[in-house]
Amino acid sequence: MQFNGVLDHLKIYEAGKPIELVVREYGIDASDVIKLASNENPRGCSPKVIEAVRDEATKMNLYPDDSMYELKEALAQKYHVNESNVIIGAGSDQVISFAVHAKANPNTKVLMAGITFAMYEIYALQTGATILKTPSAGHDLAQMRDIYRANPDISLIFLCLPNNPLGECLETKEVYDFLDEISPETLVVIDGAYQEYASFKDPAKKILPNDIISKYPNTLYSGTFSKAYGLGGMRCGYGIAQPEIIKALLKLRAPFNITNLTLKAAIVALRDDAFVQASVKENFEQMKAYEAFAKELGFKTIESYTNFIVLEFDASQNSSVIAQKLMEKGIIVRNLGAYGMNAIRVTIGTPEQNKRFFECFKTLYM
Amino acid sequence: MQFNGVLDHLKIYEAGKPIELVVREYGIDASDVIKLASNENPRGCSPKVIEAVRDEATKMNLYPDDSMYELKEALAQKYHVNESNVIIGAGSDQVISFAVHAKANPNTKVLMAGITFAMYEIYALQTGATILKTPSAGHDLAQMRDIYRANPDISLIFLCLPNNPLGECLETKEVYDFLDEISPETLVVIDGAYQEYASFKDPAKKILPNDIISKYPNTLYSGTFSKAYGLGGMRCGYGIAQPEIIKALLKLRAPFNITNLTLKAAIVALRDDAFVQASVKENFEQMKAYEAFAKELGFKTIESYTNFIVLEFDASQNSSVIAQKLMEKGIIVRNLGAYGMNAIRVTIGTPEQNKRFFECFKTLYM
Repeated sequence: MQFNGVLDHLKIYEAGKPIELVVREYGIDASDVIKLASNENPRGCSPKVIEAVRDEATKMNLYPDDSMYELKEALAQKYHVNESNVIIGAGSDQVISFAVHAKANPNTKVLMAGITFAMYEIYALQTGATILKTPSAGHDLAQMRDIYRANPDISLIFLCLPNNPLGECLETKEVYDFLDEISPETLVVIDGAYQEYASFKDPAKKILPNDIISKYPNTLYSGTFSKAYGLGGMRCGYGIAQPEIIKALLKLRAPFNITNLTLKAAIVALRDDAFVQASVKENFEQMKAYEAFAKELGFKTIESYTNFIVLEFDASQNSSVIAQKLMEKGIIVRNLGAYGMNAIRVTIGTPEQNKRFFECFKTLYM
Repeated sequence: MQFNGVLDHLKIYEAGKPIELVVREYGIDASDVIKLASNENPRGCSPKVIEAVRDEATKMNLYPDDSMYELKEALAQKYHVNESNVIIGAGSDQVISFAVHAKANPNTKVLMAGITFAMYEIYALQTGATILKTPSAGHDLAQMRDIYRANPDISLIFLCLPNNPLGECLETKEVYDFLDEISPETLVVIDGAYQEYASFKDPAKKILPNDIISKYPNTLYSGTFSKAYGLGGMRCGYGIAQPEIIKALLKLRAPFNITNLTLKAAIVALRDDAFVQASVKENFEQMKAYEAFAKELGFKTIESYTNFIVLEFDASQNSSVIAQKLMEKGIIVRNLGAYGMNAIRVTIGTPEQNKRFFECFKTLYM
């Protein structure tokens, strides 16, 4: 059977190995597997969320409130915007996919950093758009500016602040200066999936959605409950933009795009900021241990504003081999070989998990 | 800002009013509101599923197993197919959207019954395809055949068996005869969202996915956990087809498209067939009460193979007014006025709910 031509350029997405698969493939007991590969919150989520979801479990037969009124209102309050500025997605991924399908098409181009969140490219390829990336791995705004000036058919730009999978983050002031030069017809997606971490570590990198969408009506800020809120498994994210953009994206949203338990979880999670703050604080305390570990073993790191850290190896080591050997010991990390790097990305775990990572690594390599 | 032209033809989807909205708008206590509008299972879901989801709630921080191995295996076993024949979607809606985006484009046409599941058209419009509908409301295969012969650029046909929102269902033999005439290049989606009901009431209407995809490799069977399994709020459905089709659809699937709690719920739900059978049996016992009610009040009904029934009114009544008056009394039904019918669709509830519907209706109209 023939399918639409655009599918020829698409690959089936292969996600990071879940604990279940490592258990099956290597016969390691599930309780001995540590997953430091998907930037999940190692502290779980707020206990208040668990309680609320358990209560809600008797209502699984009922479709969610598709207006998502209560969640939108809570987000609007948190970010000092109106409900009409908010859209909810099954992960911020889905909001990003709406943005791509609203703006990109075979006659347009999509601009992003050399190494950044993989889904930008995957969604853009679904539309047949051309992908442009900076020669530099991370966000280099001078390079982005040059490419933008040379390509007036760029319909969409992605800024991942801070950047996954590298961890670096632009200063907000630099971002604003860049946005000054972008046409109001070009949509700029500011992916704030890890903003809770970046803004804690360095207030100069904090993005205020209400401020950025007021000054630049062509921006869309996306946020997620998957990282600092500890709800990666529940698939909930959001977009904040001017109503004109939100209305366009809503046309692409299927009804009931998140579960009713997800809706409840997100609403209750927003009320427990103390959990988020404690998670983020512990994250950066623990990151120091990774920095010390890297220094001790002579690995390069990229200064990280997220809940993960990139360890880069010299030619004497091979990141694919390292990731594989760690997996056989029950520790799952993300090999960045597919990005042309000789590096691994490690999620900052609990103190116990991190200690086991350090010990295991040293046993294998020292 | 300019968006892709295809958005001009799209409207923002307005779902049926959830209980929360009726509570807010009419000030009726939530416990007094009965929702008979969305074909949810009035018995909830299996208690085993509730227990399993509550246990799983401590893992909400972890992304689901994106291979969905265990769920695919369970479905493969149930339907006597292989894992490579199965794709999982956030509701069968999402599987349908993948099918549309894989086959439809501005140069193709999509064929469906005159009145059928609204999402077929909504997804097809997203691709810019032309929509063709039979003059008859329900599935008239002679009309479909004529339209198909006259339009060789039909890339996709929808058969909703049984049909939502009308309730009627074709015989399997008729469907096979129709499929004999369809080109192997045309994808035919057999939407089996309510098959558990139809096959219980009349085995001659039962669709066997393994049989249909073997005989007709151009078919895709879609099923859901939202109806008989009582998991509408958890957003889980599946598609069964030849691996060639599954591979194409997988290219359009975003990673982690269902929650980890959904994955657990679906796996456990498949193990409790007794719950499904009891739900379906009670459904048809209760449907008799609706048929008697319609007869008593002189309303026409459409013979239903689902968990809902359509009540058609003569010119002396207006379905919009009826639906509105019922809502003000806390009973939510679906007005079919938007489909050009003077009718309401009522989900078969519990005996208590149905009794209240009958009493309330009679108070208003007799």
